[in-house]
Amino acid sequence: MRIVITGGCGFLGRRLALLLLARRDIDALTLFDNAPSALPLPDDRRVRLVTGDIADRDTVRALIAPGTDAVYHLAAIVSGQAEADPDLGYRVNLDGTRAVLDACRALGTGPRIVFASSLAVYGGALPPSVGEDTALNPQSSYGTQKAIGELLVNDYTRKGFVDGIALRLPTVVVRPGLPNRAASTFASSMIREPLAGKEAVCPVSPETVMALASPRRVVAALAHALDLPGDALGHNRTLQLPGFSVSVGEMAEALRRAGGAEAVARLKWQPDMTIQAIVGSWPRALNAPRAEALGFARDSGIDEAVRFFIDDDLALQKTLAG
Amino acid sequence: MRIVITGGCGFLGRRLALLLLARRDIDALTLFDNAPSALPLPDDRRVRLVTGDIADRDTVRALIAPGTDAVYHLAAIVSGQAEADPDLGYRVNLDGTRAVLDACRALGTGPRIVFASSLAVYGGALPPSVGEDTALNPQSSYGTQKAIGELLVNDYTRKGFVDGIALRLPTVVVRPGLPNRAASTFASSMIREPLAGKEAVCPVSPETVMALASPRRVVAALAHALDLPGDALGHNRTLQLPGFSVSVGEMAEALRRAGGAEAVARLKWQPDMTIQAIVGSWPRALNAPRAEALGFARDSGIDEAVRFFIDDDLALQKTLAG
Repeated sequence: MRIVITGGCGFLGRRLALLLLARRDIDALTLFDNAPSALPLPDDRRVRLVTGDIADRDTVRALIAPGTDAVYHLAAIVSGQAEADPDLGYRVNLDGTRAVLDACRALGTGPRIVFASSLAVYGGALPPSVGEDTALNPQSSYGTQKAIGELLVNDYTRKGFVDGIALRLPTVVVRPGLPNRAASTFASSMIREPLAGKEAVCPVSPETVMALASPRRVVAALAHALDLPGDALGHNRTLQLPGFSVSVGEMAEALRRAGGAEAVARLKWQPDMTIQAIVGSWPRALNAPRAEALGFARDSGIDEAVRFFIDDDLALQKTLAG
Repeated sequence: MRIVITGGCGFLGRRLALLLLARRDIDALTLFDNAPSALPLPDDRRVRLVTGDIADRDTVRALIAPGTDAVYHLAAIVSGQAEADPDLGYRVNLDGTRAVLDACRALGTGPRIVFASSLAVYGGALPPSVGEDTALNPQSSYGTQKAIGELLVNDYTRKGFVDGIALRLPTVVVRPGLPNRAASTFASSMIREPLAGKEAVCPVSPETVMALASPRRVVAALAHALDLPGDALGHNRTLQLPGFSVSVGEMAEALRRAGGAEAVARLKWQPDMTIQAIVGSWPRALNAPRAEALGFARDSGIDEAVRFFIDDDLALQKTLAG
């Protein structure tokens, strides 16, 4: 199987690549990103790195070459940046997604495409628990662009141009690496930095409830989506992935259980009303019966997510500057 | 006020123009379409016709010139044609909508834009009655493109680029003119043609229930949206317009009441499983409490819609070839 991962140097893309390379039926894995990877890429003769602009149709057509069996489309401008620079957000998150879908269509083989969507598609007055039966009302350009991507994946699939699956990812915690411009970035920082011996700021109240999934679960979900029979998804190729609900106060307690009082002491509570408002508009709980029936698993809770971070990332994290 | 109507030579656009010209505060009305109007345009010095390609950004930028206060974006490729020619559908219904929104944004004044959306945004397993709280799952490229247009109108409004309203139109019956490539075209033909002395075919069963609105109500709704304070719509600028539910059998009875046994005799029942399946996937009833609270009215039923056709269009209809 020949696979392309856009956003392949991002933390999900890189880890997905490692997981896929464990499979013997993967013949070629092309990682595409706008810049070379900050972390070393897998040392495997099947891996190739291509850098370029995801919205450039010639680039993407060359990337998704004849013989491509599947494409993971993870490349995106994150929420904060898409909000600050709407032209860039639309160019990458909408034009880029169309370029990927059209390049897949041009193959004429209806390849599997797995599109990473987001909780940011939800917004406005939300029910206590949200899922695929919730009407979308995104309150950010990023969420708008992800919702459009889901619609396009569905339409291109219905037309037979691709065999698509859109996965609506919970907020991914604990992300390794450095803070980014996502409004959710604190949710990883508040655990990651103190465990690595650094200070972190929590800009929302302890009572704030979030719906999360660990990187390990999300990457496993992306891998699981590769072989899922499309017919099992019926008329709606968008799947809400499972997540667990946890208050930010409980997240601080999990930090205490994993890192002790000294770790918690590195966490500063500095309320930021703007971020509180954004995070408060997000789902507090997720309904994902379809994904669970199709074999997508849920983390047991925040302690498991913290343990995965310690096992998978903490050693490397301590070597990072910042 | 200076207003642009894209799709201004279509039957809704032309009639909207006539209604708006009755207002004294309209200083200029530019009708844009891909071809000159088949019917005579309003004879009014304020009216100007521009023809061109809605997806051509230079054309649209010149059309929506500085000083434009409001844009009605009605131009679209209809459902059957968008399905048969996906490239054309995406070009007009998605690229065209973006061109219009970006031209409005370029004005820097946040003009009112009224976007005509459609019931085709709904699909899949629907509840007995649908509305703004129904998750969208369009089962056609046209519905996909309209759903994307709604998302864009909301995002551009939230960013302050435009002051947008997207109106989700019911199936409009009785449309004057000739059949088109919309799957719903029969719903108008089955009343229009027999009243004009011609035969018509009904491809669905009498038990099929549809959610309809008359052209007069829809045009009044478009006009009403011009002055509606945007704040009244809160975080969701998409409004489901009210419609009435009626079975196709009852529509035939309304034809009998209006045109007698001789009119009904001109209606042939020839089931078409493809059209039955498409129409059967559409909403049978609409929930529109928000629109109704904002002053958008509902037809009393099919007899009123038939009467509006007789009063507004039948004389002209009888002069049409076809």
